Amino acid sequence: MYLEKITCPADVKSLGGEELKSLSQEMRDALLKKLSIHGGHFGPNFGMVEATIALHYVFDSPKDKIVFDVSHQSYCHKMLTGRADAFLYEEKYDDVSGYSNPDESEHDFFTIGHTSTSVSLASGMAKARDLNGETGNVVAVIGDGSLSGGEALEALDFAGEFDGNFIIVVNDNDMSIAENHGGIYKNLKQLRESNGKCECNLFKAMGLDYVYVSEGNDIQKLIEAFEGVKDSTKPIVVHICTEKGLGYKLAEENKENWHWCMPFDLETGECKVDFSGVESYDDLTVNYLLEKMKKDVSIVGITSGTPAVFGFTKENRIKAGKQFVDVGIAEEHAVAMASGMAKNGGKPVYGVYSTFLQRTYDQIAQDVCINNSAVTFVVFAASVYGMNDVTHLGIYDIPMISNIPNLVYLAPTSVEEYFAMLEWAIEQNEHPVAVRVPGNGVVHSDRSVRMDYSELNKFQMDKKGSRVAIVALGGAYQLGEEVIEKLANIGIDATLINPVFATGIDSEMLCSLEENHELVVTVEDGVLNGGFGEKISRFYGSHDMKVLNFGLKKEFPDRYDVSEYLKENHMTAEQICADIKSVIS
Amino acid sequence: MYLEKITCPADVKSLGGEELKSLSQEMRDALLKKLSIHGGHFGPNFGMVEATIALHYVFDSPKDKIVFDVSHQSYCHKMLTGRADAFLYEEKYDDVSGYSNPDESEHDFFTIGHTSTSVSLASGMAKARDLNGETGNVVAVIGDGSLSGGEALEALDFAGEFDGNFIIVVNDNDMSIAENHGGIYKNLKQLRESNGKCECNLFKAMGLDYVYVSEGNDIQKLIEAFEGVKDSTKPIVVHICTEKGLGYKLAEENKENWHWCMPFDLETGECKVDFSGVESYDDLTVNYLLEKMKKDVSIVGITSGTPAVFGFTKENRIKAGKQFVDVGIAEEHAVAMASGMAKNGGKPVYGVYSTFLQRTYDQIAQDVCINNSAVTFVVFAASVYGMNDVTHLGIYDIPMISNIPNLVYLAPTSVEEYFAMLEWAIEQNEHPVAVRVPGNGVVHSDRSVRMDYSELNKFQMDKKGSRVAIVALGGAYQLGEEVIEKLANIGIDATLINPVFATGIDSEMLCSLEENHELVVTVEDGVLNGGFGEKISRFYGSHDMKVLNFGLKKEFPDRYDVSEYLKENHMTAEQICADIKSVIS
Repeated sequence: MYLEKITCPADVKSLGGEELKSLSQEMRDALLKKLSIHGGHFGPNFGMVEATIALHYVFDSPKDKIVFDVSHQSYCHKMLTGRADAFLYEEKYDDVSGYSNPDESEHDFFTIGHTSTSVSLASGMAKARDLNGETGNVVAVIGDGSLSGGEALEALDFAGEFDGNFIIVVNDNDMSIAENHGGIYKNLKQLRESNGKCECNLFKAMGLDYVYVSEGNDIQKLIEAFEGVKDSTKPIVVHICTEKGLGYKLAEENKENWHWCMPFDLETGECKVDFSGVESYDDLTVNYLLEKMKKDVSIVGITSGTPAVFGFTKENRIKAGKQFVDVGIAEEHAVAMASGMAKNGGKPVYGVYSTFLQRTYDQIAQDVCINNSAVTFVVFAASVYGMNDVTHLGIYDIPMISNIPNLVYLAPTSVEEYFAMLEWAIEQNEHPVAVRVPGNGVVHSDRSVRMDYSELNKFQMDKKGSRVAIVALGGAYQLGEEVIEKLANIGIDATLINPVFATGIDSEMLCSLEENHELVVTVEDGVLNGGFGEKISRFYGSHDMKVLNFGLKKEFPDRYDVSEYLKENHMTAEQICADIKSVIS
Repeated sequence: MYLEKITCPADVKSLGGEELKSLSQEMRDALLKKLSIHGGHFGPNFGMVEATIALHYVFDSPKDKIVFDVSHQSYCHKMLTGRADAFLYEEKYDDVSGYSNPDESEHDFFTIGHTSTSVSLASGMAKARDLNGETGNVVAVIGDGSLSGGEALEALDFAGEFDGNFIIVVNDNDMSIAENHGGIYKNLKQLRESNGKCECNLFKAMGLDYVYVSEGNDIQKLIEAFEGVKDSTKPIVVHICTEKGLGYKLAEENKENWHWCMPFDLETGECKVDFSGVESYDDLTVNYLLEKMKKDVSIVGITSGTPAVFGFTKENRIKAGKQFVDVGIAEEHAVAMASGMAKNGGKPVYGVYSTFLQRTYDQIAQDVCINNSAVTFVVFAASVYGMNDVTHLGIYDIPMISNIPNLVYLAPTSVEEYFAMLEWAIEQNEHPVAVRVPGNGVVHSDRSVRMDYSELNKFQMDKKGSRVAIVALGGAYQLGEEVIEKLANIGIDATLINPVFATGIDSEMLCSLEENHELVVTVEDGVLNGGFGEKISRFYGSHDMKVLNFGLKKEFPDRYDVSEYLKENHMTAEQICADIKSVIS
């Protein structure tokens, strides 16, 4: 076996042509076994086996610097840079993260997880190299799907004027997570069909030199191409055509479903995790929206390259027809376009992961909120229970968007409240509204639910008690309920408040608490700094009321265990009760 | 005179060829007079006179919808849509804002001020029109300078796949505020030189149809072109070549300086506001950086299309040579590239207006902060004293960036402290650091200044008193000093603290205050929600200390008078003292 002996890229260089071929097969075998047991990004890595071998065969990492976009396709790179064990031996599977990671290896330069960043990051490395009079190649690898992102397009434009060595490998598998969207993909198709020869060429139009490699899964062809551009003294694009999921028939046939996988059965491809009977917000949301779309042609679902976030599978996209828009990976455009729709009689609903919403701060503020455009944002995985890779955390949304004027950020505490809020958000025309999908699962409740949220920042008192009031926001509401129960056990009949809104406070209700409460406790599923609880602290700053804020520390945790992390943040019901006891008289 | 009789676009349509020409001259005369007295965007409006006439001659606003990018070139549009008086009569100059504004007219659809948004906004209007089965043209107008912005490139890509009427007028004057930067400008040049005929065409490569108009200041040629695309059933780009500043010789000759102007002498072009002898942070910063660049080749100044923000005039850019990078309007790329530089031995210094920093939330968080890249951000106009158009406010920066983990946001209180911080930020290699340039002018101080800021979140007690402590952040420090003086007059010997850091709190010092203080007052020049003061309120939430936070309300004020606005926000020394007196025992 070659793979287990590869400790660094130099070991790749010592192999002959047939040996490299065998190596590629071993890498696919290792990928297949690990992913079937562990889950992870499937399609992107299966497509990049040969290109990664060729890159390390030709270039001299880490002196030559290879920067992977998203870096979800860097498993093969990890195998060839001293981390093969983490793909060969089950007990070592968790030794590496799913993205490039400088803590793991000198061959990784950045912790990356969002798309469309590699060209920018790498161009900076190239510029610094030149200023310091150093040498070596800088190589950015980017997939066709990521090309639609503004950050990547800005960077290609910059690269087109750059004066020095800079190699951009465009890995074109004719897919994003789902199918590609955007005019540039017509040009990529023309390039593929003309073997790279058609005159109108996006990359050349951006000022870049260009090389085309049709057989992007042929190691020798790739080695030739990379050798041809190595030490280039100007920026050049190497456009390689690969097949996503190559080597596993099911993945070749259904590229969207096999972009990423949970543990699965090797024979049947069937997912080993059984979700049957488990309600999920994505399914519930898409069913609700599809029903609404039938009755109202002005409702539009919008995604920026992640349609599954709110249940728009291929089948559901077909059902929605023209009422669903996938703009490709282009979050900024998605939000500004939604504002345009809202101003011209449309009812846009943008479904988005909290972590990717980060791309749109300025569009939310300027294009939407200054204009008070009635856009509905449905924010998923904004929770400690969301994705836990450091690059995909969703816990910063409240500080980020709740402090933007005019935005109404609603935090439902149950599925019934979620749909009441969603319905109101879509049907009203006064405010930009974001709805924070609870991260702690689909919780049903028979508590009465408000249908009209136009009286902004009106909290809801669900249980009237005394001494201590718990203000539990959105997905932290159930934790608030637990605290209430525990307090009851020690003879404290506490008040429970559902604040409903993350974007303001109910001064009247907060004042009323002063009559017979001495402590107000806030609980939120997100970072404390700049968040919800601090607003309550400010309100009571000069009053006699004591306040305790519970939430997460401002930091970048990585691949944490949720219950441990909550404990670390003093966010269990026991810990909260203990703190309450220590404060009240 | 034609202009004074034009109350709506229909009045334009009734004019003949020569009359339209006369109208264009009257519009230039009005512009020239108003701008010489009032100041405003000069070059963009002078270049767009003919195109605006032709647009309103051909299209039927407001049924046909024209969306202007940045909208700093919409003065002529305002003149032709019922607002001519605001350009003809000095007493009415302030009746209109400097940007498009739906509150002024049904011909304006959005409040716009940031670049690169028009194609997205307009595409949403087109999509909503089609869903609702309506008709009419949607026209986005965008300048060549704005094309480099990710939001615009994302939108062009989307437009390339759009199925319906959508007209994109690219106003190519071969300039951004300064010269253009990026590979796409090579392609625009090829298009101009080939009369729009060269095969390699950025717009076609993005899937769009294309028409070229070389004489973009010829009304009849423009009318022909717009009539040719009116009611087009698919997206099409109309590439028109105009001359920035056309009609005023000085502006034609020095396009960069005449992008925007203060009141000036019509004969000489000389600015009527005398800045001689007034120190400014832009000049001071560029001089400091140019000196440092001489000694250290790894230092790089970075701008995203606004080099003047930190003093990089044409002359200074030449001095900096390869150590200055203008990426064009591409804030996202600027920040990610800076991270790449920092990781490869560069010392990047990104000078940026607070309002445009909003484009980079995700790049700061992901590309820079997760990677702990030692990028230096110099944040200008982050202040109530900054630009006061609603689209250019800089008062949201603390909530936006100070809650991002790993970032160190320093808030200097004097020019001496500013340079100590800048020096430390550039020379250290551990943290991403932003420095908040004081918005209240260049204040000198002989207070001792720390040279090393590596002990994070360490506040500085400048005056030790008792009972009341004033924590006055950055540019609000002088207001804190005023408050201290006023308190002394009524017998309170208050403590004064310079917190130095906006990104954290000094628990030790805050605890020490509990010995002999009953009230802590925070003052910050920015929005309170999610800002600095709330963190102090949270800290003391369960303590006996009272806290008052002073800062700005969360809202979008527009063209405010600073001293009135501060009063409205309870931010005068008198008001603060009154509040203090009402709280202390």
